[in-house]
Amino acid sequence: MIVTVKQGSNPQQVKRLTDWIKSLGLDVHLSEGEKSTVIGLVGDTSKVDIDLIRSLDIVEAVTRIQEPYKNANRKFHPEDSIVDVSGVKFGGKHFQMIAGPCSVESEKQVIGIAEAVKASGATMLRGGAFKPRTSPYAFQGLGLKGLEILKKAREATGLPIVTELMSERFIDAFAEVDMVQIGARNMQNFDLLKAVGRLGRPVLLKRGLANTIEEWLMSAEYIMSEGNMNVVLCERGIRTFEPYTRNTLDLSAIPILKEKTHLPVIVDPSHASGLSRLVKPMSLASVGAGADGLIIEVHNDPPHALCDGAQSLRPEQFDDVVRAIDVMLPLVNKERG
Amino acid sequence: MIVTVKQGSNPQQVKRLTDWIKSLGLDVHLSEGEKSTVIGLVGDTSKVDIDLIRSLDIVEAVTRIQEPYKNANRKFHPEDSIVDVSGVKFGGKHFQMIAGPCSVESEKQVIGIAEAVKASGATMLRGGAFKPRTSPYAFQGLGLKGLEILKKAREATGLPIVTELMSERFIDAFAEVDMVQIGARNMQNFDLLKAVGRLGRPVLLKRGLANTIEEWLMSAEYIMSEGNMNVVLCERGIRTFEPYTRNTLDLSAIPILKEKTHLPVIVDPSHASGLSRLVKPMSLASVGAGADGLIIEVHNDPPHALCDGAQSLRPEQFDDVVRAIDVMLPLVNKERG
Amino acid sequence: MIVTVKQGSNPQQVKRLTDWIKSLGLDVHLSEGEKSTVIGLVGDTSKVDIDLIRSLDIVEAVTRIQEPYKNANRKFHPEDSIVDVSGVKFGGKHFQMIAGPCSVESEKQVIGIAEAVKASGATMLRGGAFKPRTSPYAFQGLGLKGLEILKKAREATGLPIVTELMSERFIDAFAEVDMVQIGARNMQNFDLLKAVGRLGRPVLLKRGLANTIEEWLMSAEYIMSEGNMNVVLCERGIRTFEPYTRNTLDLSAIPILKEKTHLPVIVDPSHASGLSRLVKPMSLASVGAGADGLIIEVHNDPPHALCDGAQSLRPEQFDDVVRAIDVMLPLVNKERG
Amino acid sequence: MIVTVKQGSNPQQVKRLTDWIKSLGLDVHLSEGEKSTVIGLVGDTSKVDIDLIRSLDIVEAVTRIQEPYKNANRKFHPEDSIVDVSGVKFGGKHFQMIAGPCSVESEKQVIGIAEAVKASGATMLRGGAFKPRTSPYAFQGLGLKGLEILKKAREATGLPIVTELMSERFIDAFAEVDMVQIGARNMQNFDLLKAVGRLGRPVLLKRGLANTIEEWLMSAEYIMSEGNMNVVLCERGIRTFEPYTRNTLDLSAIPILKEKTHLPVIVDPSHASGLSRLVKPMSLASVGAGADGLIIEVHNDPPHALCDGAQSLRPEQFDDVVRAIDVMLPLVNKERG
Repeated sequence: MIVTVKQGSNPQQVKRLTDWIKSLGLDVHLSEGEKSTVIGLVGDTSKVDIDLIRSLDIVEAVTRIQEPYKNANRKFHPEDSIVDVSGVKFGGKHFQMIAGPCSVESEKQVIGIAEAVKASGATMLRGGAFKPRTSPYAFQGLGLKGLEILKKAREATGLPIVTELMSERFIDAFAEVDMVQIGARNMQNFDLLKAVGRLGRPVLLKRGLANTIEEWLMSAEYIMSEGNMNVVLCERGIRTFEPYTRNTLDLSAIPILKEKTHLPVIVDPSHASGLSRLVKPMSLASVGAGADGLIIEVHNDPPHALCDGAQSLRPEQFDDVVRAIDVMLPLVNKERG
Repeated sequence: MIVTVKQGSNPQQVKRLTDWIKSLGLDVHLSEGEKSTVIGLVGDTSKVDIDLIRSLDIVEAVTRIQEPYKNANRKFHPEDSIVDVSGVKFGGKHFQMIAGPCSVESEKQVIGIAEAVKASGATMLRGGAFKPRTSPYAFQGLGLKGLEILKKAREATGLPIVTELMSERFIDAFAEVDMVQIGARNMQNFDLLKAVGRLGRPVLLKRGLANTIEEWLMSAEYIMSEGNMNVVLCERGIRTFEPYTRNTLDLSAIPILKEKTHLPVIVDPSHASGLSRLVKPMSLASVGAGADGLIIEVHNDPPHALCDGAQSLRPEQFDDVVRAIDVMLPLVNKERG
Repeated sequence: MIVTVKQGSNPQQVKRLTDWIKSLGLDVHLSEGEKSTVIGLVGDTSKVDIDLIRSLDIVEAVTRIQEPYKNANRKFHPEDSIVDVSGVKFGGKHFQMIAGPCSVESEKQVIGIAEAVKASGATMLRGGAFKPRTSPYAFQGLGLKGLEILKKAREATGLPIVTELMSERFIDAFAEVDMVQIGARNMQNFDLLKAVGRLGRPVLLKRGLANTIEEWLMSAEYIMSEGNMNVVLCERGIRTFEPYTRNTLDLSAIPILKEKTHLPVIVDPSHASGLSRLVKPMSLASVGAGADGLIIEVHNDPPHALCDGAQSLRPEQFDDVVRAIDVMLPLVNKERG
Repeated sequence: MIVTVKQGSNPQQVKRLTDWIKSLGLDVHLSEGEKSTVIGLVGDTSKVDIDLIRSLDIVEAVTRIQEPYKNANRKFHPEDSIVDVSGVKFGGKHFQMIAGPCSVESEKQVIGIAEAVKASGATMLRGGAFKPRTSPYAFQGLGLKGLEILKKAREATGLPIVTELMSERFIDAFAEVDMVQIGARNMQNFDLLKAVGRLGRPVLLKRGLANTIEEWLMSAEYIMSEGNMNVVLCERGIRTFEPYTRNTLDLSAIPILKEKTHLPVIVDPSHASGLSRLVKPMSLASVGAGADGLIIEVHNDPPHALCDGAQSLRPEQFDDVVRAIDVMLPLVNKERG
């Protein structure tokens, strides 16, 4: 960490700052120029509160040299991590398709969709049992009953399941889930992150609505610092001023993450836009950007044919997306499955 | 809710949509013009998923007429709510100053600050026992021990205390806190909102980093729908592209909230900018905008004199802010305390 | 346009509103429900100031049914427009690569790069003669002399040229340019838009840093309303809170534009991130999203080998991007050139 | 400027970088630590392209020490600048109220409003002759005829006038205007900035919709670098994700600007929210934050009584705002006029 001190600062104040830095167990490398004094902090700066230093009256600017994340940092783990979810591998040359309904509604619905998406090439099943809803009056999901239905679909199809955990209260029930999803709204629910870190199941960590890439990696770090290294990141759109799409899918985040971290990264093109007709082009775009997989909403329920055009694809549309991706994967040195 | 159907839509699809709306228990008022068909939804639309309808292929636009919040809605409660926190009243003509240290460090520290801010006119004590930190390696607060220290400071000074709850696991311990703070990162931690709703203590609900005013009121609604009507909102800055300040304080939110809801609204000028030298001007600006109070960080610890210039004010700076506010309050028809 | 009137509004105020709407030459379709009054505006609403109506005290919400753009609207021109720039066609099945240096520095530099990128498959040459710079003290480009150099490179290689116009003062000089670029900062410089509309040369219209897709199409409409239909849109990143990239490339904008407009859309992956190592993945992502071309910065100047790693690609890196795109184009039904 | 080099960078690449820096006429101060190499740039770095250096492969981070603006920088001009607009003084202890109609419609309208606002205490008259409109089909203002009307109102009332210039083509006509307004959409129309710099009339420079404070000061610098030091800044709201208000008024910008620059800063509370009922609270908030004045829309045209509730105040509402401000000004050490 490099601290630039304001011109004309009181030398006593500078000394108080360097003394305080030393009291944190760090060495200080002082370089006094004509126009500015630069303080280099040597040692493990991950505990240093950068915002506190930045807000000091005598400080002009603070520059991090070491990233604040360690376990997630590619510098210390140059090879891609392969995260194994009950046999389904994320990272490296692997490309995985996760598919399933938005909400778990019934055994018949989920198994029907699971069979269809498996036939098209999906290797994991998604489905919401606990649903984060903006309104307390909206349907909040089937909860534990939904989990049971997902497990039955796993039994019926062999597909491992991923579903969202919203509260520490249900953590025990999630020990039987293959992969635990942390939703965007809980990306900085630090107690929940620690809890899934301790649980030890692979985690699908969605990016928060308005979180930077660095904050996202720090949330991965929370999970990993509890000993759970099996984290897959999922880009799902960030909040911007553009109203046509619900969120703006940030695909540049993928090549950046590939530099910064060894963790796999997948994309959720369904939630980002909220428009099913954008799922195919944004899926292909995600492959081009270097993603390790996709998680896509698929429905098959005829009485809800109404929802055609909404966020979810029909099974035949999903199949069409998988076929297009298959043509593209060799170009990015990846293989499906 | 008004649904505008795209020109040239298939009448059968329109019928499927209106049938589906009716199946939700709502009446439908259909108005077919030359250029467009407009569907009015009559009844309680608070359970209707507006995003789902918006994403349908045949839908051009959806317009809410009823706000999705009820308990928090000023339409149904035209009078200002007065939230009573152990005798300290928020709302109406009351203006309250909450002050205290960023983190609880020691009994001596907290009591010292509490006495100083009380002398200047603070009517409540704040202080972080559980600290939400971006990094798992940063100090996470004293936890339950911090709560005990706050309670001792309450005993010593008579000031009611407000402190942040980050996890349902500690909810029982917070039954003895006068006011439970829900932090920005947990504004959409829906399970936590329901839990503090059931706990029944007054709640200080901070706005999420990137949440709209409507989402904020929906989070208040989560708490209120559990029967807890004692919610005070706290604006603390939103995330924008501007890098000089940590966040951008959205003071226009205050007069808007005053229209939309009967709940009291206070402002946290310390966290928004992260710069103590902005606390005074932004405090006066908050009063001008119509806030019902302020929550301000104050420190008094000489060994940390280092932190001068950071987010926290010294007690004498806090006193100066209170004096300036006192001059201004009559202008906005408010009184301190 | 559908105007929803607030519950309990004074009927006289509603009448004044409908009278005013009629005074604009529009018909009014009034639908009075129990809970709300809905006013439909029938006729050409493109001149109606939606913000004015929205801000009226009696108005709950305003919903557009007709988009405010006409010439750019796919509803009225269902076929893709093909924009012909001196023989180079944009739109439909065509996919074009535009390449060249950031700034025009010398004849030798520009011709050298032009020959190299032409050999790799570029069909147009880009290069900045007038440079929009945040600082008045930074190099502002060679100006008219830069234009002359570009024209010489066109002569030498046969590649049509595109370069940025920043001021109406130089409009005459741009009559000899094959395609006039309007930069992001001038996207809402309405007088400049009208001027290039009158000039009649094909226009490359970059998206403003913080402009919505609708505002962008309205800027295209400014050019088209002067009779110049040859507009190509260029996505180049929007401003968000994420600091790793200079801007966030909004690739979802491409499939949305393909729905809303018949105009071609290309992507500038160099400026969006400011990082050359992101150019290849974001180029492939752009193809996947459905872009009609790319505009890429390429340099070849050995004394500036320093700049390796900056925004610009070396010619051999550009060649590598073109080769990868060629494999991908059949997948999206496009052909290069 | 401090450049931090990535760990493990090739010493030859570092040498090329330092050689290049020296070729720009700067001295280099190299500090090689165990973990990092830090390069200090000594000399006038205002011409250095920070983005270029930041994008180099070997560079970890770049930190500015000197701000890139000189003339606007308070470091070099510690005293508040007083900008004199035909006798009306901005800055220091002065607080000015500018008021007038959104658009100039007729002599009678403008003079009527001018007389009313002057009676309430306005010291300058505003009014749009050239109107920046998102749509080419919307009314674009009376143009030069509008300027003539404003000049007649000036004659009738003695109030100096401020109005927006949108194109260099009309610069001569603006030589007779007391203060030239540069609108938000033209904040980075650099040729227009240079032109008003050369014109020499006082300039009211509005902040761009999505521009940082530093970019704003750099636009002031463009004007000042042409020798025109009479620049008044005007905060008018920035673009965020919040939909209730048209823009989010960034009042923290005021105390920050007061630190960074000696130029006066005023606030436009009418345009920011687009809601007249927010004008009073946001005006008081602006005074609290330390603004040097306000620019407010006022209308008085009975046939448009329709517009009640829109962005503009009625004269009696404007009078009420001035009365409230008068009570508040002593608190911030300011006087009206």
